Amino acid sequence: MRIARFSLDGNVGFGVVEGQPSDPDGPVLDIIKGHPFAEFERSGQKIPLNKVRLLPPVLPNKVVAIGRNYAEHAAELGNEVPETPVTFFKPSTAVIGPGDPVVYPSFSQEVHHEAELAVVIGRMCKEVPRERVKDVILGYTCANDITARDAQQREKQWARAKGFDSSCPLGPWVETGLALEDIAAGIGVMCTVNGEQRQLGRTSDMVRPIEDLIVHITEAMTLLPGDVILTGTPAGVGPLVPGDEVAVTIEGIGTLTNKVIKRG
Amino acid sequence: MRIARFSLDGNVGFGVVEGQPSDPDGPVLDIIKGHPFAEFERSGQKIPLNKVRLLPPVLPNKVVAIGRNYAEHAAELGNEVPETPVTFFKPSTAVIGPGDPVVYPSFSQEVHHEAELAVVIGRMCKEVPRERVKDVILGYTCANDITARDAQQREKQWARAKGFDSSCPLGPWVETGLALEDIAAGIGVMCTVNGEQRQLGRTSDMVRPIEDLIVHITEAMTLLPGDVILTGTPAGVGPLVPGDEVAVTIEGIGTLTNKVIKRG
Repeated sequence: MRIARFSLDGNVGFGVVEGQPSDPDGPVLDIIKGHPFAEFERSGQKIPLNKVRLLPPVLPNKVVAIGRNYAEHAAELGNEVPETPVTFFKPSTAVIGPGDPVVYPSFSQEVHHEAELAVVIGRMCKEVPRERVKDVILGYTCANDITARDAQQREKQWARAKGFDSSCPLGPWVETGLALEDIAAGIGVMCTVNGEQRQLGRTSDMVRPIEDLIVHITEAMTLLPGDVILTGTPAGVGPLVPGDEVAVTIEGIGTLTNKVIKRG
Repeated sequence: MRIARFSLDGNVGFGVVEGQPSDPDGPVLDIIKGHPFAEFERSGQKIPLNKVRLLPPVLPNKVVAIGRNYAEHAAELGNEVPETPVTFFKPSTAVIGPGDPVVYPSFSQEVHHEAELAVVIGRMCKEVPRERVKDVILGYTCANDITARDAQQREKQWARAKGFDSSCPLGPWVETGLALEDIAAGIGVMCTVNGEQRQLGRTSDMVRPIEDLIVHITEAMTLLPGDVILTGTPAGVGPLVPGDEVAVTIEGIGTLTNKVIKRG
């Protein structure tokens, strides 16, 4: 099931995406009563997907991201795979949705794309045992861990380099039908810039699987419904310039597209 | 003016603290209608401070913290003062209030206190010019940037070491009567453990003043009402063990006291 968050005529809600782009009228959204973090009913009220504005599929309290979780990507930046996961935050103010612009920040001349599988947390949890990890996951979405690479190299901690406004595109929706086994077996994570492929990896190449990441993070901190875990990026990261259209496609989920623009 | 956030009989609200501990009946809280991030009225309904439970004085969307902003503290951990401020996040799930326990996390054997002056943001802001910094500040409170020092040294990014649950005590209230000039001239920041002084610094010794920090942070990201900036800790950091009572006292603000406990 694909759960999208949308706005229409000033109202914000969640809906289940039904149908395919190839359908005569395209996919529709079946509006949800309430929110998807508990049992919910579909209203039966259906709106064509192309009539709404898709928002970030969740409003995370926090985004916890993992660095260097694909060996080839660690190597391309001259880094080793770390002994403990590199764990950092992106703030909620960095989150944007599909179609929203990535705005080049004033302090960087080199903003990079990093396509990543994002885990959406479904329930409040702490110190999650490995075998319960599946129970705290609502689903998966596409993320772009936009990074001011020059600032990242200058600044010891990455709050600015990876936390600036618009540095965390998420979307287009949460896919609830993937299992941890599917991700361990490997789904494709791709990034294109202006239609040209830049990154292509498989989740089976993660250094640490999602179970390990969630155990590691929740050893320290409570996760809340809607919190998001970014699971690291495969090799092929590179610069974006204003005017670029960057798209993250994850097999079985969908495509998250954003335009890069100059500060207004 | 001192603005506290409190709970009483299951209700949560804000109030203005009036009177002194030396008053016959102690200080009282004059309950606020609404919240302190806009013009507000006092209700005139007064409750003795000792009848309520004080909560963290704000519920930040994010806490942005600055490392190594006092030269003597940087030196005591063998670090140099960085060319650009070390900027990291503590998540909202780390925030606790006065009297709440600091819980030793499972992954650390060495949790340290770090007494810090905290700036409470009063309005949504981005790219704040230096001369407008005063306009975005609601007031100041005491913070303890509790740090799992061993994890901080092992883990390249500090999300776990400085972001675990209960690692961000804030309180006891927001003091709105301090000016940036007072802080530049120097107010005392002290930490005691079990009544014994461990840290004592003056805000006039900050490497970078609050104006610079807010310009630096908001160059990258939007701050929201209730967001908190931690301005760095003076020398004297050291370990806490379960059973310790740690108190941060800031001149002109008050004292934030927390007990350290084992995981339950």
